[in-house]
Amino acid sequence: MSTEAAPVTPPAPELQQALRRALGDEVVRTDPAALRAAQGDRSGQVSATVPLAVVEARSTGDVQAALRFATEHRIPVVPRGAGTGLAGAAQAGGGELVVSTAAMTRVLEVSRDDELAVVEPGVINADLNERLAGHGLFWAPDPASRAISTVGGNIATNAGGLHCVKYGVTREAVLGLEVVLADGRAVRVGHRTVKGVTGYDLTALMIGSEGTLGVITEATLRLRPLPRGEKVTISAAFDSVEQAARAASVMVASGIRPAILELLDATALEGLSAHLGIDLGGRGAQLLVQTDGDASEREASDAEAVIRSLGGRPERSADAADAERLFEIRRAFHSSNEARGAVLIEDVAVPRSALPAMFAAIERVQAEYGILIPTVAHAGDGNLHPNFVFEADTVDGFVEVPDHVWDAADALFQACLRLGGTLTGEHGVGILKRRWLRDELGDDVMDLQRRLKAVFDPLGILNPGKAI
Amino acid sequence: MSTEAAPVTPPAPELQQALRRALGDEVVRTDPAALRAAQGDRSGQVSATVPLAVVEARSTGDVQAALRFATEHRIPVVPRGAGTGLAGAAQAGGGELVVSTAAMTRVLEVSRDDELAVVEPGVINADLNERLAGHGLFWAPDPASRAISTVGGNIATNAGGLHCVKYGVTREAVLGLEVVLADGRAVRVGHRTVKGVTGYDLTALMIGSEGTLGVITEATLRLRPLPRGEKVTISAAFDSVEQAARAASVMVASGIRPAILELLDATALEGLSAHLGIDLGGRGAQLLVQTDGDASEREASDAEAVIRSLGGRPERSADAADAERLFEIRRAFHSSNEARGAVLIEDVAVPRSALPAMFAAIERVQAEYGILIPTVAHAGDGNLHPNFVFEADTVDGFVEVPDHVWDAADALFQACLRLGGTLTGEHGVGILKRRWLRDELGDDVMDLQRRLKAVFDPLGILNPGKAI
Repeated sequence: MSTEAAPVTPPAPELQQALRRALGDEVVRTDPAALRAAQGDRSGQVSATVPLAVVEARSTGDVQAALRFATEHRIPVVPRGAGTGLAGAAQAGGGELVVSTAAMTRVLEVSRDDELAVVEPGVINADLNERLAGHGLFWAPDPASRAISTVGGNIATNAGGLHCVKYGVTREAVLGLEVVLADGRAVRVGHRTVKGVTGYDLTALMIGSEGTLGVITEATLRLRPLPRGEKVTISAAFDSVEQAARAASVMVASGIRPAILELLDATALEGLSAHLGIDLGGRGAQLLVQTDGDASEREASDAEAVIRSLGGRPERSADAADAERLFEIRRAFHSSNEARGAVLIEDVAVPRSALPAMFAAIERVQAEYGILIPTVAHAGDGNLHPNFVFEADTVDGFVEVPDHVWDAADALFQACLRLGGTLTGEHGVGILKRRWLRDELGDDVMDLQRRLKAVFDPLGILNPGKAI
Repeated sequence: MSTEAAPVTPPAPELQQALRRALGDEVVRTDPAALRAAQGDRSGQVSATVPLAVVEARSTGDVQAALRFATEHRIPVVPRGAGTGLAGAAQAGGGELVVSTAAMTRVLEVSRDDELAVVEPGVINADLNERLAGHGLFWAPDPASRAISTVGGNIATNAGGLHCVKYGVTREAVLGLEVVLADGRAVRVGHRTVKGVTGYDLTALMIGSEGTLGVITEATLRLRPLPRGEKVTISAAFDSVEQAARAASVMVASGIRPAILELLDATALEGLSAHLGIDLGGRGAQLLVQTDGDASEREASDAEAVIRSLGGRPERSADAADAERLFEIRRAFHSSNEARGAVLIEDVAVPRSALPAMFAAIERVQAEYGILIPTVAHAGDGNLHPNFVFEADTVDGFVEVPDHVWDAADALFQACLRLGGTLTGEHGVGILKRRWLRDELGDDVMDLQRRLKAVFDPLGILNPGKAI
């Protein structure tokens, strides 16, 4: 069973012509701007070579036609949403056919009674949630990119976000999918019901598969009622990151379920101070806690008690606008890093109790390799985003990550695995994590994964070189 | 790729001898009582033929040895826990090797900090939860069989239960697994972290696979803190089952999250009245609601308002003992049916909004086929258990389901599928639902499922003829 596509024989212009004939001019783009855009994502990395074409699908039928064409001509396919991924899974290169579902943005159904929505994959997460709010509902996955990322991309990467600590990851928020397989057949997997055990769970298999098993063309989403009660937001300064991490761990272990529980370390706070022109320096770490629902007031008081018991200084936001300012600071994390240099965005996760040890490991790597590693964490999930900031030449948008940065990342990954953690909590494997995957999964599981892929994609044309 | 095991050549006594030599006398049972017990489960059905032997595994090593033996001799393997399944997946027949993990009952770790437990598969659900209560934790899956079913069996069938409406099914309560593959290799899938997206989600694939992909030998379970606050229990009588079903649907749609939301229809209540010698008759249906957590009092008041608005008569339990009496009545449902005749236990699920329509369909099938179909529902999930009660000869424990009962079941399944539902919400496919599976999944998905199985079990020795 080959997992690589056979070489493409006809030259690109002829293939582009054939593609236009098969799919129609209106959905096939081969202009330099479209091809150029499809080479990159939000990881800061860019593919070095140019893809064949971008299919801007308007319908499941367009996706099917594109995949039938790709199968016929043995062309590798790179499925793409808004291209906001952080691990390179959507980056397309030489000779690859990009199949974008970004233009499939319809919300086909919203059911308050069944707490579900049926949507096309291109709908933007925040747009969907704005619409759902009118029904008193929300879709829980809220990656930091929610204003620009698509629901289809969220599903393809099993995206996380700030709310996971209380409301779960994307896998827990999808009931069923329509998927176009490599050969162009469209299948439906999953259910419209909240329970269902007919056959193997192909829905879960598709979620987080990063475009290597099929192209998602429709999703039945599990929604939740908007939480009742007033939200309470607390910001807490700590002298050390270990104490802040411990506070987060103790908070969850004591049964408190904050809707948001974010941690910013000293290096992150320094960067944000400089970037935003405000004073957040001189503290070891900051926790950002938000409670919601009927018990928000009581949970907030309990959270404050935990914070104080570990030497933290809690402060409640006066109102929603005040709270929003805190989250804006948190959301400025990525731009504050970009202002400091080139960035490699990482995404490890450890059991919550290992958070203090993981922060200690980050400090050691920072010191040993002489690299700035500002870090924020979805602390309630044990999910950390160490960002490696370094100097690098950027040639035409392409950042070459120097070897010593990869070495530092390797040291950090090994520390994470020793603590019982995983290489990626929510960003995915893409191309950036592939070299470490075997360290975590082992040979037998890697072999199962490859053979699983071959079931769905026997010719190996779906996103080759990504994820597994 | 064959999905059936090759015929076994050596006669059974020689194979039994070889098995004893390979695994040791202490784990291999071939006495008639052990073989007889392995022919059945709790579905009321029994395999017509006798298995080869029962391996009572004490360790992962024993399971590996059994599967290596089975692979070498091409012997079909039936994994088994406590044998409490309701769909026949654990029933073993002629020449099959039963691999039981019921004796692997150790709890290897409980972490309050990380809200997880690492357990062997044979631990009984209720025993585990009793132990976890001492840590202030619980494992949410609570099938009606929880006093007698194993955690491994709960995982292998993706068991549901009364608490799913608030706390989710088994799939949402498992972080990772150790699994022995058909060829005897042991692999670890999943994580110790709550988030993790390295590779395809093999953990979800194993959950609910009914022993057809591997044998679970260890599980890392996701736990929850025991809910705070006083539980409030409400019983409500309705004149019609449609109104009761509507009340359940409206309750959830209005954002109330009861921990338990059960519905018993008139036929079920009549059977329970007769069986328990109490008076539950003369009403169209009964709802049983329990709220827990910080907002239990407020949610209970809201639930009562919904009940009244739909013509129901809510009554609060005076105390925990009073509430427990109500749940004892609910739990007597199965024995009340068995007292009425032979029983075929069903398990369909529909979108919540279709509950009233599904109850109407059950009434139609009941009238048309002249069969008693007492029904209870986990109403918050849209999951119904219509029980077909009929007269049948029981020969040596084996109940032959008459054709007209299967015809009635078929009519009910088709109604369920038309309402956007699924054939099994939580019991699994086993052998009893196999003939309808293609109606729900379609040819393409059936084909994917078979090829997926072949990745894990190329010789087709794992639970052949079950689930898919």
